[in-house]
Amino acid sequence: MKNIKTDRIPWKEVTDPGADKVKIKVVLGEPEGAPNFIMRVFEVAPGGNTPRHTHNWEHEIFVLAGKGVAFANGKDNPVEPGDALLIPPNEEHQFRNESKEPFRFICLIPKIK
Amino acid sequence: MKNIKTDRIPWKEVTDPGADKVKIKVVLGEPEGAPNFIMRVFEVAPGGNTPRHTHNWEHEIFVLAGKGVAFANGKDNPVEPGDALLIPPNEEHQFRNESKEPFRFICLIPKIK
Repeated sequence: MKNIKTDRIPWKEVTDPGADKVKIKVVLGEPEGAPNFIMRVFEVAPGGNTPRHTHNWEHEIFVLAGKGVAFANGKDNPVEPGDALLIPPNEEHQFRNESKEPFRFICLIPKIK
Repeated sequence: MKNIKTDRIPWKEVTDPGADKVKIKVVLGEPEGAPNFIMRVFEVAPGGNTPRHTHNWEHEIFVLAGKGVAFANGKDNPVEPGDALLIPPNEEHQFRNESKEPFRFICLIPKIK
């Protein structure tokens, strides 16, 4: 078993075009031996957003803290801690933080994508 | 996008041999259209434990609440909120709650296992 103390992993700024005030840490990835899917943690600062984009793999998300807006299905959806989100492949999506607190969530992707 | 309000999903008692005081809810599974991996939430009540067992697929876990003990690598490992755990395929494992609060975690498995 690998036990990753995720609070000790440094954040990396997401520099993809369209990302603003977004940080990521990969907590279970290939270096840890993840066979099939990768666990990341994201934090979107107040006023920030992920890119609005599309790709041919899914996201499975669990909201940990804060309140956010998930744009998907062509509309904005408020999300909050305890929500589990499935973004299917090829669905345009974006996460925004319109609150005053950090918006943090786990986001998993398949390893082969 | 599917947005599952996980707090509203009823718990199911885990009745597998060796499980004691363990509840599960599948939050992102085949009915929600999960293509590659399945997200479940477990809660182990104080004094409870999951079966000590082995299988040929991995677990990716994120601890949400409470303190638990993960038996793996042949020994007990204390785990706490914020810990991300990778149990590789074929590694014997068990989760126990020796605290006085519920021990809750997300546990993902591959869909084809």
